[in-house]
This record gives sequence, C-alpha cells and structure tokens, in this order.
Amino acid sequence: MTRKSAEELAKKARQISISEFFEKNRHLLGFDNPRKALLIAVKEAVDNALDACEEARILPEISIELIQLNDTLFRMIVEDNGPGIIESQIPKIFAKLLYGSKFHKLSSTRGQQGIGISATLLYGQLTTGRPAVILSKINKDKEADKIKLKINTQTNNPDIVSSEKVEWAEKNHGTRIEIDMEGAYLKGKQSVDEYLKETAIVNPHLTLIYTNPNAEQIIFPRVTEEMPAEIKEIKPHPYGIELGRLIKMLEVTAAKTMQQFLTTEFVRVGPGTAKEICQNSALLPKTKPKKITREMAEGLYQGIKKTKIISPPTDCISPIGAEELEKGLRKEINAEFYCSTTRPPSVYRGNPFIIEVALAFGGEQEADKTVRIMRFANRVPLLYQQGACAITSSIMNTAWRNYGLQQSRTSIPVGPCTIVVHMTSVWVPFTSESKEALANYNEIVKEIKLALQECGRK
Amino acid sequence: MTRKSAEELAKKARQISISEFFEKNRHLLGFDNPRKALLIAVKEAVDNALDACEEARILPEISIELIQLNDTLFRMIVEDNGPGIIESQIPKIFAKLLYGSKFHKLSSTRGQQGIGISATLLYGQLTTGRPAVILSKINKDKEADKIKLKINTQTNNPDIVSSEKVEWAEKNHGTRIEIDMEGAYLKGKQSVDEYLKETAIVNPHLTLIYTNPNAEQIIFPRVTEEMPAEIKEIKPHPYGIELGRLIKMLEVTAAKTMQQFLTTEFVRVGPGTAKEICQNSALLPKTKPKKITREMAEGLYQGIKKTKIISPPTDCISPIGAEELEKGLRKEINAEFYCSTTRPPSVYRGNPFIIEVALAFGGEQEADKTVRIMRFANRVPLLYQQGACAITSSIMNTAWRNYGLQQSRTSIPVGPCTIVVHMTSVWVPFTSESKEALANYNEIVKEIKLALQECGRK
Repeated sequence: MTRKSAEELAKKARQISISEFFEKNRHLLGFDNPRKALLIAVKEAVDNALDACEEARILPEISIELIQLNDTLFRMIVEDNGPGIIESQIPKIFAKLLYGSKFHKLSSTRGQQGIGISATLLYGQLTTGRPAVILSKINKDKEADKIKLKINTQTNNPDIVSSEKVEWAEKNHGTRIEIDMEGAYLKGKQSVDEYLKETAIVNPHLTLIYTNPNAEQIIFPRVTEEMPAEIKEIKPHPYGIELGRLIKMLEVTAAKTMQQFLTTEFVRVGPGTAKEICQNSALLPKTKPKKITREMAEGLYQGIKKTKIISPPTDCISPIGAEELEKGLRKEINAEFYCSTTRPPSVYRGNPFIIEVALAFGGEQEADKTVRIMRFANRVPLLYQQGACAITSSIMNTAWRNYGLQQSRTSIPVGPCTIVVHMTSVWVPFTSESKEALANYNEIVKEIKLALQECGRK
Repeated sequence: MTRKSAEELAKKARQISISEFFEKNRHLLGFDNPRKALLIAVKEAVDNALDACEEARILPEISIELIQLNDTLFRMIVEDNGPGIIESQIPKIFAKLLYGSKFHKLSSTRGQQGIGISATLLYGQLTTGRPAVILSKINKDKEADKIKLKINTQTNNPDIVSSEKVEWAEKNHGTRIEIDMEGAYLKGKQSVDEYLKETAIVNPHLTLIYTNPNAEQIIFPRVTEEMPAEIKEIKPHPYGIELGRLIKMLEVTAAKTMQQFLTTEFVRVGPGTAKEICQNSALLPKTKPKKITREMAEGLYQGIKKTKIISPPTDCISPIGAEELEKGLRKEINAEFYCSTTRPPSVYRGNPFIIEVALAFGGEQEADKTVRIMRFANRVPLLYQQGACAITSSIMNTAWRNYGLQQSRTSIPVGPCTIVVHMTSVWVPFTSESKEALANYNEIVKEIKLALQECGRK
C-alpha cells in the first residue's frame, strides 16, 4: 500500500467554472434526456420572454417554432415583442451563467437565477457544436443587433462569433433567439405542447403562436387585454431571516442606528415595531449597527421572533386569483363541482408567498385512477419531478377520505378529481436548477395543506 | 401602463457569485429543513474523510460527534485519520464553493463537485453566524494548523478569522472539522444514525465511532483490513461523448494527428481502432486536429458511433461485488432467499458505470407493504428523494408479478422483499447538488432493469 502525502494530493485541487460545472451536470438543469431537453429549452425561452414583456409593461405576444433538422436534431426559434436587449448586454445575458437582473431582488418573476437561458445555449453548444443566434431590437428607429454566441466554458464568459447591425422591419422592438440542439419531439403529458397549453391557461394576457415540428400551427389567443398587476420589489420580512444573513445586513447597512436599520432594511417595520423589537432584544434603538456583536445579533434574532409583526404586503406577489384559477380549470376539465381558494400571504425564510388551490370533482373524470395533479409556480407549469415536490407530499399527507376520495395511508388519493396548486412568491424554492419541484419548507407545506383542506371542505 | 425601455431594464443586470447563489438556494444542497440539514452536514464531512483516506491509501477511522447546544442548535465534530490538508489549501477547500480536486478527473470518488463541504460551512454560517474551526496535521513531526473560517458570499472567497499552529498530540495526521448549525435530531429512516449504519455496511474497511446528541456512543468496527482496490483515473470513452465536447477536445489537444488524438485522448482506442474510426468518418489519420471543421467533427462523431469499440476498463470504478453486497444484506435483513448480481460495465455520456443489485426475499419481512428499497451511489447511501431517483423508476417499470410480487401497473411492488441497488461510476449523475437521486439517463435505467431482471430470475 503506497501512501500519498497531503502535498501530493494538494496539487490537484483547482477552481471549477460554473459553466464547466453545469456542462458536466447538465441533468441538474433538466437536460438529461432529449425529450425533456426540448421542453426545458422552450420553457426557459418563454419564461424569459414573458418576464421581459411584463417588466416593460407590454402585452406579450410570443411565437415558438420547432423545426426538425434530422432524426435527433432540432432548431428552436422563439420570438417575442418585448423591450429588446441593449447590444452590450446580449452576450452576458445569453452566454454567461449566473448573470441576470432577477437574482438580487425580491419579486415574483418566473426566472430568478440567471442560469436558464445561458444553460440552454450551453446544451445546444454541447450537443451540436453550433453557436446560438440572437436578434434584438430596442427601438423602431434603430437597427437590430444580430449576434452569434458561444460560451467559453473554462471561463464562463461569452464568446462572440459574429456581431452585426441588421434590418428587422416586422418588429418595433423584440428579441428572437435561435438555438440548435439534440432533442426528441413527442406529444402527451410532459410535452412542449402540454407546457404551452398550461402556460396559456395561467397567463390569460398572453398570445402564443406555436408551430410544432410537424409544421402544425396552434394559436392560443389572449383572452384579456389586462396585464397582471405590476409586481413590486420588496425588502425582506423580519420573520424567517437567518441569523447569518442578519449579521451580514448589519455589517453592510448604511443606517446609523438600530432604529433606522430596522425601519429601512425590512418591510412592515415602522418606528413603533422597531422600538418593540429593540426592547425585546435588550438593545437601545440608538445603538450603531456596526457596534452589534455576534451575541447581540443573536439577541436581536430572538427579539424579532418575540415581536408581533404584520404579514408582508401582497402587491409584490401576483396570485392568479381563486376565480381566474377556477375559470381556467373549467375550460380544461369537464367536472361536476368546482371550487377554489386563495390563502392569505404567508412567509418562509423572510419571503412572502401565497398558495392557491382549485379542485374539479366528478363529471367525466375517471373514478378508479389517482387524481390528476397540476402544479404551477409563479404562473409556470411544473411538468416533471412530481414525486419530489412539496405540493405532491402535501396532497399525500392530507386525509382525503373525509372528502369522499379513496386513499391508502399517505399516498396520492384515487378518485374522479383534479387538483390544481399554484405557489407564487418573490423567491420560489425549487429542488433543482431545472425548477420542476418545490422544496419541502415546513411553512410552505403547511399552507398547501390548509388550502387543500379549505377547498376540500367546500 | 408605463412602458419601460431596454436601457432602464439593463441597469439591473449583474453577476451572481456562486456562494450567494447557494446561500439563497440552500435547499438545492439539501439544507431545506433542520433534520435533513444535520444529515447532509454529516454526509459531506464523512464522504470527504473517506475519499481522502482512500486516495492516500490509509485505512479510514472516522469519529463523528453531534452535540446539542440548545433547542435548535447543534455542533458537529468530524475527525479522521486521513493525510491532512496543507495549510495553504485549507481555506479554499473549506470556504470556497466549486473548488476541489475531484471535478476535473474521471474516477469514482464520493465527492465530485467541489461544493459539499463548503456548502456545509455556508449553512452553518447562515444559521449561526459563527465561523467553522478546521484542525489539520499532515506529518507527525509538524504542528497542526488550526484555522477559523467564514465564507465571503459576495466574492465566494475564504475569510480567515484566525490561523495558528497548535499541538495535536493524539494524531500523526488527520483532519478535524467543527461546525455549529441549526438542526434537528431524530432517529428513524432518514436519520444520521441510519446513514452511518448503511455507510458502514457498504464500506467494510471503515471504522466509525459515532456519538449522538444523547451522548450515546456507537462503534462500527471495520470487518476487513483490506482497502477497496485503488481507483484509477481514466480518459473518456468515445461512446457517449457529446459533439460539442469533441469539438472542444479537438481545439485544445496537443496531438499532431487525428490518429494520435484518438489514441491519446480516449480510453480503449488503440492504433487499429483509431484507423477504423477515421475510415468510418471519411477522415485521414494524418489530418491535423486543428484543421477539423465543425462539419468534419460531425462526421467524426457519426464515425465513432459506427465503430465497434470495447467497453471501458473497470479498474477505474470500484464495485462492492455481488458477494459482498449480499453479505451486507444478510447482516441487515432476516430473509428466506438472497441473491445478487454485478452487471458488466456500461457507458453513459462517455462515463463507465456498473450497476449491482441484491435482493432479500421472504423471511421476517412484511408481506403487505411496498418493498424496501436501499439505494447507493459510489458506496454512499441515498436516503432522500426516492421518488425522483432512476433506481426507483427502474424498479417501478420492471414487471415484478413474474417474480412473485404484487404490483399495480408501474408502481412500487408490494411484498416481503428488500431491493438494494448500487451504482458506481467515474461520474454519478445526481438530480441535484444534494446528491440524493440518480438522473434518468436511458443507459442507466436500462442497466438497472437488466440487473433487476437477472436477480429476479434467480
């Protein structure tokens, strides 16, 4: 047995770029099989287009085209009427992982991590070796930018293959992306078709034009001209903030006193509440944040828990609304009874969230199968990883026999029923970067169960 | 409706550090509830200790101590007799995410991503604000290094709180880490206790000394003095290499000809096979790799698929062995019949892997419950996310009625049976950074099914 020394072993350690990491771990992003890859690619592109349109307050019109190039190769073209992207930002937005505008704010956008669309380019590049083509126009009086992009995986930086100004007469503003990739096109439950259909249901203000690989065009016209309420960015709520994060906030704050710190860095803390928190933490409101030791921070952390603070505002999150959700369900499922509920906002880790549930019972639904579960997060349908999702485990841990369904102990109930659950939050906790399932935070599970019970009773 | 311009929207985009990313997404690493957090922390520390011992060819002896500090706070102390870590490497190994020695090589270690242990420090820091304490000694004639560490999340760099030389008389070499964190200690199926017990089963060369928060000490002595065969690093196998990766390899290779490129950059490609690949790709063996265009690379990619190449060697992966696996199962389960099988090596995405299965049937096992599934990857027990794992879906998609179990269509079979599945590979594809479930690559699912069927027939 030849022993190796610490010095020898140390030689091999080095830094890993985030692109290399996701290239090797592409399954983390959902790119583990060709069928799912195509779905994820469409999802990332559509999510981004919707977010951009809504942030710019433009009624979204998005067209998606999938072209089959050979047995295993597809071209995806997604075009929106969004605000466009300025030239200097295009390479980083599309060809640098962990870059974006949504991570550092608390607001209920679909995208949040600054990974999705660059990861899609990375997957295309990995499976075809070809660059992606981005076309973007920000103003009707300007020419569009057409940029061919690859990702340098060793440095996680964009590699601009070519960049030119071009005419794009059809559009005043918008973005068009074109990516070749390995894929497989199948219809059915976890398909691009299903994802787009469900997306249209929960985004009634969206017009979708979809051309599938069989060259069939399907149009989902918008059913309302009304945009969802403008979503606001908020500060964190004191409940649920971790001690370590609190300490970091104390270190970097510009506030001169604890009173000021509490009222300016958090939502729902007015002068009265701030005083009360200080009292409960045995701190003087005039103390300078820089003077707070780790022990004092622990006291503050406990003091916050002892103080009654009202729930976070809801104008930062955008529920679909019980009525709208039920309406969508009625369109989709022919049932006997419908009911729906929107829970009051709650908080996990300082992040406000709302759970909405709709049920459709009886009618043409099959009685001897497990119920159908439809999951949504910030208006995005979740089609994979049902088994890993907090929504599913909450359903399994609710006693459905009381509500007329069959159920063997903590499993999915059986009966003619469809259950729709929507979580909206300024930060949705997904179990993986592919954003397919909600993580099991206790506060979230509790709210889902309460919503299910409320609905069940109806 | 006030529209926002592309210029306005562009202002908010910025880079996200990988530490910030995982701090906000700590559930990706498994730190979403206190009970699981404690398990993940122990797992990351023990995985690292085992890898270090095996790489240095030292018979591992690891002690784990969990101390409850208050209702929700725990101190974890993990100490090994490994080779130790040189002073300059300690901060980066423990307090920089995506840094390590295992990512850039292909070998079947437990750790692979350079995230786990730093993420554990990050979680401790986030929930307690306290630094971690690392003690490491690399040589009996040297003093040990004692370093207190935090992570600067904005830069993803280590923040050294203090560093000193100290006496550590009990050990000639080894590492000891101490991290405070929020947690919850419970026994049962997904507990630290269960994880350590299963770890001892699949690592018969390991001595484990475990002191739980109730101050009960449990010792798992090693049952063999024999180390697992030394695992070798290998080059990728031509099958399963993606086109994009092939193009990158052609760009960076030092090889002067295609012949040389194929024989030096891949495993199992000798001069004869290389010639055949070139022929099947309509390329001359003398062509310079730098001259290969994207189109020629596509030809090469197809040519590789057409060429018969022998399976990758197995000395780079470390199966437990059918016999050993069955022995472990016999110790754990009192059954009537046992059987086990080790499949020949197979390849996914260019990575060799082996599937091993053991079954225990009848005896004292309950007949009216779903079978018990025990999942392992590179000798690490997988306790969470059973529903999301390729092992589970392979079991569900195997027809068990033929083998005397009850099963309703594609669900987990019911009967007095325990199924153990072990995957070992130079790169295990997990569905998330918390490494709890295998991703659904077709090649892997197929091998698991074949192994189950082989075992079932017995």
